[in-house]
Amino acid sequence: MKIRFATSNPYKVSEGNVVGAGFGIEYVQLKEPYPEIRDEDVSRVAEEGARFVFDRINKPVIVEDTGLFIEALNGFPGSFSAFVFGKLGNNGILKLLGEVENRKAEFISAVGYCNQEGVRVFKGSVKGLIADRKKGMGGFGYDPIFIPAGQKKTFAEDPGMKERISHRNKAFQRFSEWIVSI
Amino acid sequence: MKIRFATSNPYKVSEGNVVGAGFGIEYVQLKEPYPEIRDEDVSRVAEEGARFVFDRINKPVIVEDTGLFIEALNGFPGSFSAFVFGKLGNNGILKLLGEVENRKAEFISAVGYCNQEGVRVFKGSVKGLIADRKKGMGGFGYDPIFIPAGQKKTFAEDPGMKERISHRNKAFQRFSEWIVSI
Repeated sequence: MKIRFATSNPYKVSEGNVVGAGFGIEYVQLKEPYPEIRDEDVSRVAEEGARFVFDRINKPVIVEDTGLFIEALNGFPGSFSAFVFGKLGNNGILKLLGEVENRKAEFISAVGYCNQEGVRVFKGSVKGLIADRKKGMGGFGYDPIFIPAGQKKTFAEDPGMKERISHRNKAFQRFSEWIVSI
Repeated sequence: MKIRFATSNPYKVSEGNVVGAGFGIEYVQLKEPYPEIRDEDVSRVAEEGARFVFDRINKPVIVEDTGLFIEALNGFPGSFSAFVFGKLGNNGILKLLGEVENRKAEFISAVGYCNQEGVRVFKGSVKGLIADRKKGMGGFGYDPIFIPAGQKKTFAEDPGMKERISHRNKAFQRFSEWIVSI
């Protein structure tokens, strides 16, 4: 089964396909832009994005939104993660945290699926810590500074580990299970 | 003449009224929320906000959006200023800048007016520098760290100066001049 995935980020499509392979699903990138609503909840961003693209193409589609929520920064950058990454990068996050002891963070991913019956959202999350410096070359975005709970390496140091346990993996698992069951 | 001003921020209404007084205009706060689009241009945010509120109340209305664009931070926090302020505050901005020599910044304000004929946007801006620490108790938001070009004090240290020369003052001047001329 092929599923359209509206995103400008090919890495997200690859990560979706690692999961999709186990379900006979192929996620196919659709470069259809959509306005991201300014909501602090990634679920709402994914929901509205999927609805927008569906209304435009009139075919079932998914949109995925991810946020990195850092406890000591009141949840910053949250659902504004992509914008903030473009402006400040990982160095900006490390500077903001400085020597602060509380490095707790959570990645949350939401997959919104819209078809003629409406929208459904599937979430996945992973808790972890912000590293004291960037480590690793894999992945993208904040991966070089995120160490998932129970791990010693960042997502960027061990992309295979990321593929297995990430927030996005979990959200795609939930979505994939559901879509093949209906 | 009374003009509805959709905003949750009473300070903005006061600042508008300092200008409005000279034109016989009274800006009246309307607590009608609107979704802020995730555009990096404050004009687009004001434009879409005004259109949204007009569509809801079917009466002429203004919406104002402001961004602080810091050169050394690639324009961060820009049109996301309110969100970023809520998460990081002025201390976050100062931490991000650290000892960087380039302190150049610009405040940009956009007033969007929507009536049955459509939307018009009026902009005002003021260039300046980011202070090395917070100074002053007046104003709101980033005022304690913004020193306009040609001044020695921050907006928060001299709210009277802010009222005379601010980005918002200029945008409201332009809008007020236009609205009384039509």
